Amino acid sequence: MTIQEGDFIKLSYNGKLEDGIVFDTTDENVAKENGIYNEQGMYGGDVVVAGAGHTIKGLDEELIGKEEGDSGTIEIPPEKAFGEHDPKLVESHSITKFQDRKAYPGMEVQIDNRKGVVSRVIGRRVRVDFNHPLAGKTVTYDYSIDKKIEDDDEKLQGLLALYTGMPEMDAKIENNTAIINIPNELTFNQRWLMVKGRIASELMQHLGIEEVQYVEKYPPESSKTEESESEETMEETESSGE
Amino acid sequence: MTIQEGDFIKLSYNGKLEDGIVFDTTDENVAKENGIYNEQGMYGGDVVVAGAGHTIKGLDEELIGKEEGDSGTIEIPPEKAFGEHDPKLVESHSITKFQDRKAYPGMEVQIDNRKGVVSRVIGRRVRVDFNHPLAGKTVTYDYSIDKKIEDDDEKLQGLLALYTGMPEMDAKIENNTAIINIPNELTFNQRWLMVKGRIASELMQHLGIEEVQYVEKYPPESSKTEESESEETMEETESSGE
Repeated sequence: MTIQEGDFIKLSYNGKLEDGIVFDTTDENVAKENGIYNEQGMYGGDVVVAGAGHTIKGLDEELIGKEEGDSGTIEIPPEKAFGEHDPKLVESHSITKFQDRKAYPGMEVQIDNRKGVVSRVIGRRVRVDFNHPLAGKTVTYDYSIDKKIEDDDEKLQGLLALYTGMPEMDAKIENNTAIINIPNELTFNQRWLMVKGRIASELMQHLGIEEVQYVEKYPPESSKTEESESEETMEETESSGE
Repeated sequence: MTIQEGDFIKLSYNGKLEDGIVFDTTDENVAKENGIYNEQGMYGGDVVVAGAGHTIKGLDEELIGKEEGDSGTIEIPPEKAFGEHDPKLVESHSITKFQDRKAYPGMEVQIDNRKGVVSRVIGRRVRVDFNHPLAGKTVTYDYSIDKKIEDDDEKLQGLLALYTGMPEMDAKIENNTAIINIPNELTFNQRWLMVKGRIASELMQHLGIEEVQYVEKYPPESSKTEESESEETMEETESSGE
């Protein structure tokens, strides 16, 4: 029952910075206690494929060789977490690029489609840091391997949930083909459009199936969530460790 | 056999301005002779639903009550063709809005996501006409009703071709449901994303079916055309009379 690369597991974790601040968690209560609770978030553990890069590298490597039910704590250096801090990604920009010429340290900005954070303002020059907000940080993860998943339908649902933030989709596996009905609210979701190819190739690789079919039905079945809400759900999954 | 609203017909036509210039045609040779040939275009006649707005209003109305095999010529006033010319859609803009401050009459421009044509340049002011290029024009159509289409598969293919510019898609009708395999090159096509809902509702309305399923398969089957080409194909269909 040792966890090997390619195994599906249900993983719970809390990610902390060196000062103890929790920045990521699969536990709803921990999220609420630490002010990072997301109403659209899915709590209760993520289904991930061991060694597939579904979580940060240091944690992903830690899983291999462990057993179902194991738990532990691991300190992860920047290069196996969110990357080193790259000084070349800190740039000077003229304050004229900012709305109302307003800029202050900590302010989140978007310049040329890149997200950054203002680090300093010196006269009319603004230093903007485009590194990942957690770049250069050593992080600590408490984790537990809640379960090794053997059932193909559960694997399918788990991988879909990991990428879409939707707890249960209308999907089945038949004749080596995964048939997935796409809910109306994902149809125009930009993130869905970007990840659907990757999800399909991961399903083929990790479930050993030959084909994935996404089916979009008209007239659309009445959807439970508003489109804008589901977009937030998908954005939320983006923030989970990578 | 009289054509009624909702009938599928195969329609050939040449659209001309009052000075005889051909601006639209279903005939490949006519297109070449008049310098409007599009390599990605589909020639040989369009499948349209009579009375459904698939062609300009004046021509669409003309079809009703005709017979298979009929042909004719009709002069169509602006209000039943590309609309009256609206003087409010001719605007003055500062020449500073133009790249390199360059503007000349006839120049095609895009301002605030609207396409227009420069009509005059007076000092630093540029008059831009955002009307349809054929607004205000009386047009003449030679048309022939080549065929009334009775077969459901042919209707399905015809309507898909009208909107996508693809001559034959992998599609079938089963149990009152149209099942349409989406070729890989349409997956990210912005125009496809915008029209697929409309195509589905037209198929349900005009074919009397209950459901439309779009199926996207992974791994994608090898496609015959490049993505960029198919985009042009779809753009091309946009220019056919509406």
